[in-house]
Amino acid sequence: MPFLDLDFMLGTETARRLYHDYAAAMPIYDYHCHLPPEDLAGDRTFANLHEAWLEGDHYKWRAMRANGVEERYCTGYGGDADPYEKFLAFAQTVPHTIRNPLYHWTHLELQRYFGIDAPLNGDTAKEIWDDANRQLAVMPVSAILEKFDVAVIGTTDAPADDLAHHRQLAENQTLAKTAVYPAFRPDKVHDLSDLAAWNATIDSLGASAEIRIEDFDDLLAALAKRHAFFHDHGCRLSDHGLTSLPNVPCSEAAARKAFNAARQGDDNATPNGPRMIDTADAALFTAFMMQFLGRLDHAAGWTHQLHLGAIRNNNDWAYEHLGPDTGYDSIGDARQGPGLRRHLGTLARDRKLPKTILYNLNPADNYLFAAMAGNYQEAGPGLPPGKVQYGSGWWFLDQKEGMTMQLNALSNLGLLTRFVGMLTDSRSFLSFPRHEYFRRLLCDLLGRDVENGELPNDLDMLGKVVQDVSFNNAVNYFGMELKGRG
Amino acid sequence: MPFLDLDFMLGTETARRLYHDYAAAMPIYDYHCHLPPEDLAGDRTFANLHEAWLEGDHYKWRAMRANGVEERYCTGYGGDADPYEKFLAFAQTVPHTIRNPLYHWTHLELQRYFGIDAPLNGDTAKEIWDDANRQLAVMPVSAILEKFDVAVIGTTDAPADDLAHHRQLAENQTLAKTAVYPAFRPDKVHDLSDLAAWNATIDSLGASAEIRIEDFDDLLAALAKRHAFFHDHGCRLSDHGLTSLPNVPCSEAAARKAFNAARQGDDNATPNGPRMIDTADAALFTAFMMQFLGRLDHAAGWTHQLHLGAIRNNNDWAYEHLGPDTGYDSIGDARQGPGLRRHLGTLARDRKLPKTILYNLNPADNYLFAAMAGNYQEAGPGLPPGKVQYGSGWWFLDQKEGMTMQLNALSNLGLLTRFVGMLTDSRSFLSFPRHEYFRRLLCDLLGRDVENGELPNDLDMLGKVVQDVSFNNAVNYFGMELKGRG
Amino acid sequence: MPFLDLDFMLGTETARRLYHDYAAAMPIYDYHCHLPPEDLAGDRTFANLHEAWLEGDHYKWRAMRANGVEERYCTGYGGDADPYEKFLAFAQTVPHTIRNPLYHWTHLELQRYFGIDAPLNGDTAKEIWDDANRQLAVMPVSAILEKFDVAVIGTTDAPADDLAHHRQLAENQTLAKTAVYPAFRPDKVHDLSDLAAWNATIDSLGASAEIRIEDFDDLLAALAKRHAFFHDHGCRLSDHGLTSLPNVPCSEAAARKAFNAARQGDDNATPNGPRMIDTADAALFTAFMMQFLGRLDHAAGWTHQLHLGAIRNNNDWAYEHLGPDTGYDSIGDARQGPGLRRHLGTLARDRKLPKTILYNLNPADNYLFAAMAGNYQEAGPGLPPGKVQYGSGWWFLDQKEGMTMQLNALSNLGLLTRFVGMLTDSRSFLSFPRHEYFRRLLCDLLGRDVENGELPNDLDMLGKVVQDVSFNNAVNYFGMELKGRG
Repeated sequence: MPFLDLDFMLGTETARRLYHDYAAAMPIYDYHCHLPPEDLAGDRTFANLHEAWLEGDHYKWRAMRANGVEERYCTGYGGDADPYEKFLAFAQTVPHTIRNPLYHWTHLELQRYFGIDAPLNGDTAKEIWDDANRQLAVMPVSAILEKFDVAVIGTTDAPADDLAHHRQLAENQTLAKTAVYPAFRPDKVHDLSDLAAWNATIDSLGASAEIRIEDFDDLLAALAKRHAFFHDHGCRLSDHGLTSLPNVPCSEAAARKAFNAARQGDDNATPNGPRMIDTADAALFTAFMMQFLGRLDHAAGWTHQLHLGAIRNNNDWAYEHLGPDTGYDSIGDARQGPGLRRHLGTLARDRKLPKTILYNLNPADNYLFAAMAGNYQEAGPGLPPGKVQYGSGWWFLDQKEGMTMQLNALSNLGLLTRFVGMLTDSRSFLSFPRHEYFRRLLCDLLGRDVENGELPNDLDMLGKVVQDVSFNNAVNYFGMELKGRG
Repeated sequence: MPFLDLDFMLGTETARRLYHDYAAAMPIYDYHCHLPPEDLAGDRTFANLHEAWLEGDHYKWRAMRANGVEERYCTGYGGDADPYEKFLAFAQTVPHTIRNPLYHWTHLELQRYFGIDAPLNGDTAKEIWDDANRQLAVMPVSAILEKFDVAVIGTTDAPADDLAHHRQLAENQTLAKTAVYPAFRPDKVHDLSDLAAWNATIDSLGASAEIRIEDFDDLLAALAKRHAFFHDHGCRLSDHGLTSLPNVPCSEAAARKAFNAARQGDDNATPNGPRMIDTADAALFTAFMMQFLGRLDHAAGWTHQLHLGAIRNNNDWAYEHLGPDTGYDSIGDARQGPGLRRHLGTLARDRKLPKTILYNLNPADNYLFAAMAGNYQEAGPGLPPGKVQYGSGWWFLDQKEGMTMQLNALSNLGLLTRFVGMLTDSRSFLSFPRHEYFRRLLCDLLGRDVENGELPNDLDMLGKVVQDVSFNNAVNYFGMELKGRG
Repeated sequence: MPFLDLDFMLGTETARRLYHDYAAAMPIYDYHCHLPPEDLAGDRTFANLHEAWLEGDHYKWRAMRANGVEERYCTGYGGDADPYEKFLAFAQTVPHTIRNPLYHWTHLELQRYFGIDAPLNGDTAKEIWDDANRQLAVMPVSAILEKFDVAVIGTTDAPADDLAHHRQLAENQTLAKTAVYPAFRPDKVHDLSDLAAWNATIDSLGASAEIRIEDFDDLLAALAKRHAFFHDHGCRLSDHGLTSLPNVPCSEAAARKAFNAARQGDDNATPNGPRMIDTADAALFTAFMMQFLGRLDHAAGWTHQLHLGAIRNNNDWAYEHLGPDTGYDSIGDARQGPGLRRHLGTLARDRKLPKTILYNLNPADNYLFAAMAGNYQEAGPGLPPGKVQYGSGWWFLDQKEGMTMQLNALSNLGLLTRFVGMLTDSRSFLSFPRHEYFRRLLCDLLGRDVENGELPNDLDMLGKVVQDVSFNNAVNYFGMELKGRG
């Protein structure tokens, strides 16, 4: 089979029919990503492939570094290379990424956005650069969203964000058929590991809420006010990224005490360095705040997303010289079970558990997470089937093996048919083919099962499953309004 | 290949020959399950598919809840639905379980027990209900056991059980060719997490042993007496379910102290709630008791089964309103290595390690468990090959992917040929096709290896392996007498 | 496909062409093994298959024990059997090892060394014994190395080793085209769990360095001197085996204090048993020493190998009666992330991280390790691409499933093309076909991807990858000189 052919990854006739007849035409519902709202509102046009592809893409930087490429071609540290030089260094790395998802992403993106079939490498770099840049000049964000039939985009936003870009998007018709909604991401509000940063976050939260945060109750009031503000802007999801959920009881008194200690004084420095909160007290604070936030989500009918298991900034030199989010984050092995069970079990005890999606970063935890979701399913007025979801392969797991493992764990321990499906989690407008990739994989798994006698050869039934997982389930689950779609 | 065809899951010609010519005709040796002894002794007939299938089946309830079915159709909480309504809710859920083991179990069971080939769903529910119920009326337990050629059933019993049903089964000929033996399951005897429940267990143990348990030595004597009583009733297995084995030294003095503290006073309540034993002391008690029980098993030539890794009652609302064993148990991530090594290593040090089967619930532990078994193998008078077994995929892992992972880990780190094979671990008389499922999978793996050049194309040799793993190894390993089989 | 055919494991035409046209002819670069330097220097000839195959091979002993073979046929404990009896017991076990790597290793070795195609079992044992022994008599080590075109062997040596055999090998022409280099393995130098053994190690280190080790600085000086001595003998790798890296800060003061406490007095016994260092202090010592050793490796341009995750001597009876390294080691579940991140992150902070290879023993850690490697990649003068490597499947993982999982994790999270590839890690001169096995597997994975449309059908490009991973990358990465190869 030719590389990235029409039938790429579709190993059986059933898979091909499922993909082409059922999956391919479904719109995209990208309920969680990191696309910049200003680029959406401003209908950005990219000057070149470097801007569109490489700026800030730590996946690509990691591959380049592993290929022996110097930092000045990645982040630019140590003598910033020019955009084409950086692109060339990436192009030279691409042939070295075979079997890495980047190899597929890169060539799928070249094909789907620019109709470029040539493999990217050092020899083809210049021609591809020129060709793609020419096309990018007339390919604003709105054209991309139309081309890929993107129905919904869920951005990721700090509670203090004014959501001006979202308002602008709601008010005008730049994006005719793409609804854009914010998501509430309050991680920094309950992270006491850096008190100076935390106090700044609290101050900014207070300013945006127009509440002077002097005591703990003010913090809770400000958060609730911002939550309502986000709700008014169409937000129906929150997102929470933690190494693991703390396995400690969430007493309000303990949280209040930690808040007071963390908030005290204007100056967060002591003669012996920055002021610190004891780790155990910080965990108590986080535990309480997560409960509080979960209850806000429940009351508003939102979906509560938990992204667990990353360890960040593992290269001390790089953190100091390049800063965070530059490709030095990784997969951790913190225990997930006890904290997850405590957080969800406590909310469930009080009948305050919102719709929830669980994502793990270490695939060793796949079965634990998939089974954990099953402990909190329930039916109720206004609740969709599959209230607690085991979320799609995330970050390092967002590739064929990782997504296959997730789909298998979900299938074996839960209901694939009720799955809300794929999200890009991406910062790039060139990532939409990942939905195609996911759909091909899903169709391939189902096709194999049919041809192995493990599923009935009922294309209508399976085709409906494919369409549901590709799009319909997400529409039904999240309850965010579509736009310009009859 | 048609769904659930004669050659279902058998992807190669070699697999088909291995299954049909060697595996299919072997009797079933279900050495560990949870079938109710009273149903066996009374030769129960089931009134309908709800009784036979849904009553108490938390696998099905979990799937139904994930499908948005209300609790009254599961446990009946909140206004008990009638049996057909519950069955209908399950039938409507079945099409949503594709790729979940329930989809295969359900249709295999309909085919194998009732000759019903139609897929179960909302439309077919009534017809299938009527048809199956008609057949169930003339399908007592004895007929089921004969139909599936079940040679041995190992039930699971509390040490205080009077084994009256087992005596009745041994004395009459209700089951002509099925031997039924108890297994000794003393978990509650060393679980100090709920002192009121524990004291009741100890009292009941004493009553059954006719020993008044006043001090620690009485407890040990009562346990030994009950162990001997079980032995006299043909029992040759014990079973132990723990989240993890405690990694603490097992001094008798510490266990005695914990016993005395736990036993003191008649009233287990204090003004501040139920009386508690310190977690560390409770672990010391459990560690000692597990050693004591292992030594009893060793002395009697029994098999010591360790089921490790479940976390239970994770939904606090459900535990309070629906009670235990209602579908809210899950897969944990407690560390298994140190406690397992300590328990087995200490028994091995004293040459008191019984035949042992290790089962893990989190598949992340597969390789650890399979390798751990290899540390304690030994030959000796009366010992079968494969003294320490890595047990079959259990509970959440009792499905194609889980069983494949177990068979691969076992194959790579131990000896597949010496494996005692599949068990249902089931509460339902309709679960026997799981042995067929396991055998198909085993034949499929071997067939693939042959056709890939990784195993010799020697059907006699491989056919013998299949027959050994399906039945002969278990006969040889457990040493329980067969009945009415020449 | 016939068993172990020419096209064994090569499931596609692409795989067959990649293997036969590109992989098969590449020399072997066995950068890490445990072959005895004296056997290399002395050009040993083996008296029989027992000497060559079974003496000290705990893989085989584990399989034999799992097959119910008595200890006297394994280690010889309890009445040593004669060499042929032991061989026969192994031969009788072989048919029981199907799907275990031993089944493949055994028959590959019989074929590749002796041209023996018959399956080994009880019936064929005598004939194979005689045939192979006849051939072994004229098959000295030098002939084996020539036959398998072994370009480099990296042995494993204690810092106090005088490297006399390595000098001898460098000075004469016994091995015309095989370069043999030592590797520096200082585990015992920082293991304070057995103070008597540790003090003996320190004394012997001092003697070899001609430094009287009286204080902590003497220890560091002696290590540095031995490191330089190894460097002068061509050593370019160190190797470190730990259950896990300690997650504690590595202050020199704490290490010095632990050293002084551990070193004090001539007598390591107290009235209450052997003198012990507190576990936490021992961890501080290990952490500092690992940092010190990492910095030595960095300064010398060596590769720093980390083998993490084994738990040893798990059977207390066997440890007492049979000693260490007799087949009672296993896979542990200690947390790896925090210690690994601290060790590598601290070295990176100071720009002192050497080229490093990470090996894990528990496959649950595969993704963690593969991702962790990506945090420390960097380009620099003299540095090859892929500075930090995710190492090949090790020990229990050195089989088809284990190697596949490693290759997939590496591919998905790093760059397969930059991989330094396979090593035997073996104590046996009959293990070289494992390189063939690895190459077949690699070609099979690539072939499948091509035929599935996931890789371009570009044999020259993929053939080069295969050759690089088989040999060229290691040549380039380790920088050890080849011998007699133009």
